[in-house]
Amino acid sequence: MGTMTPGVILAKYNRRAEAACSLLCVGLDSEVEKLPARFREAQFPQFAFNQWVIDQTVEYASAYKPNMAFYEARGSQGLDELRMTLDYLHANHPDVVTICDAKRADIGNTNRGYVSSIFDFLGFDAITLHPYLGGEALAPFLERSDKACVILCRTSNPGAREFQDLEVNGQPLWEIVAEKVSASWNTRGNCMLVVGATYPDEMRRIRQVAPNVTFLVPGIGAQGGDLEGWSTLGLIGKERA
Amino acid sequence: MGTMTPGVILAKYNRRAEAACSLLCVGLDSEVEKLPARFREAQFPQFAFNQWVIDQTVEYASAYKPNMAFYEARGSQGLDELRMTLDYLHANHPDVVTICDAKRADIGNTNRGYVSSIFDFLGFDAITLHPYLGGEALAPFLERSDKACVILCRTSNPGAREFQDLEVNGQPLWEIVAEKVSASWNTRGNCMLVVGATYPDEMRRIRQVAPNVTFLVPGIGAQGGDLEGWSTLGLIGKERA
Repeated sequence: MGTMTPGVILAKYNRRAEAACSLLCVGLDSEVEKLPARFREAQFPQFAFNQWVIDQTVEYASAYKPNMAFYEARGSQGLDELRMTLDYLHANHPDVVTICDAKRADIGNTNRGYVSSIFDFLGFDAITLHPYLGGEALAPFLERSDKACVILCRTSNPGAREFQDLEVNGQPLWEIVAEKVSASWNTRGNCMLVVGATYPDEMRRIRQVAPNVTFLVPGIGAQGGDLEGWSTLGLIGKERA
Repeated sequence: MGTMTPGVILAKYNRRAEAACSLLCVGLDSEVEKLPARFREAQFPQFAFNQWVIDQTVEYASAYKPNMAFYEARGSQGLDELRMTLDYLHANHPDVVTICDAKRADIGNTNRGYVSSIFDFLGFDAITLHPYLGGEALAPFLERSDKACVILCRTSNPGAREFQDLEVNGQPLWEIVAEKVSASWNTRGNCMLVVGATYPDEMRRIRQVAPNVTFLVPGIGAQGGDLEGWSTLGLIGKERA
């Protein structure tokens, strides 16, 4: 069943969630074209917007999650502003967890480039990863006991079923991914699972097969997921004072 | 079985392969620390090395494939040198195909950031993509009939079997990926499949289920794949004059 001891980043997350009395992870998907004009016209539009969002939400947040695609879209300018965002978080809110939603996964040592860039240069606590190449390929991420790996399991998109629902000996693929991560990949207590809020039944089952793994739950709001019924999953059990 | 008409990029590839009498795709995995000193000490080490590799190999090459991880590892400096490499190829060898080995895949519109960065800003002809989120998620890539999508099917790494070999109604997952891409995703003739040279039996089977899809075959050389027996697959049938 893998370790029950959370690694460094999961322990950090648990402390912050307890202190802030919040399980909220705030997305920083700062697509420049969609920003309000006062940010769009700033010298560093993505950073200015992120800084404002962070200031408004940090009291209620346990984690922040910028999606890399919106920064890469602007080339080195976007990467600079992502770095500024991370520096701002590190300097002012070192107790919140930072997750890079980069959805990476290459083979073996090639991943070291992403490890350098996302864990070491940008200084993220965690990264989202595709499972398709297997745990062996992801070793450069999984070996980092000082960081966390958030593995795509049941994604929140409408077409997630195409491969993730394929049945292997009566089990859907997403369930096998959850089991593997829980039983084999999480020996350092540094794994999490992406479980879309848009698929509550799957979430219930994944909690059964991966009882000790923390979930990252995207898809609340615009994508249609909601918080109804989550208390029955033991995912939200505490009221904010 | 999907289209038999190759899209713009596959047609470009076929013309180049015919003209150069070569199926060779040259990797540009230019990890700075491993470059010879004369390049490592250059102002733009990755670009200088790539330019040299291109000059030495272009006569024999149909495609070039930089792996994004090695450039991202250096932050904006690496991205600038990748851009310089692409500009060099576009200016001097517009007939060779350029593949960004980025192994991306996010959900829906989020992918537009990667589309902007890799197809439009850097100007690559093609990108490698993870299949796990399904074809619906990949629409922003698949809809680009002027570009090509290279879907990970059977990867070349030793641990590829962990998920890719799971059996669904007697078929391994990699075979289902190959079928889906061939039958449903390739309506614009812009899909390819990654089939590792390290798994020749799987390659034979994938050629059967995806007869009209061009393969990207990594893993020759250091990873242990070789060219033996490929002529029996109809993959290499012509001698260079």
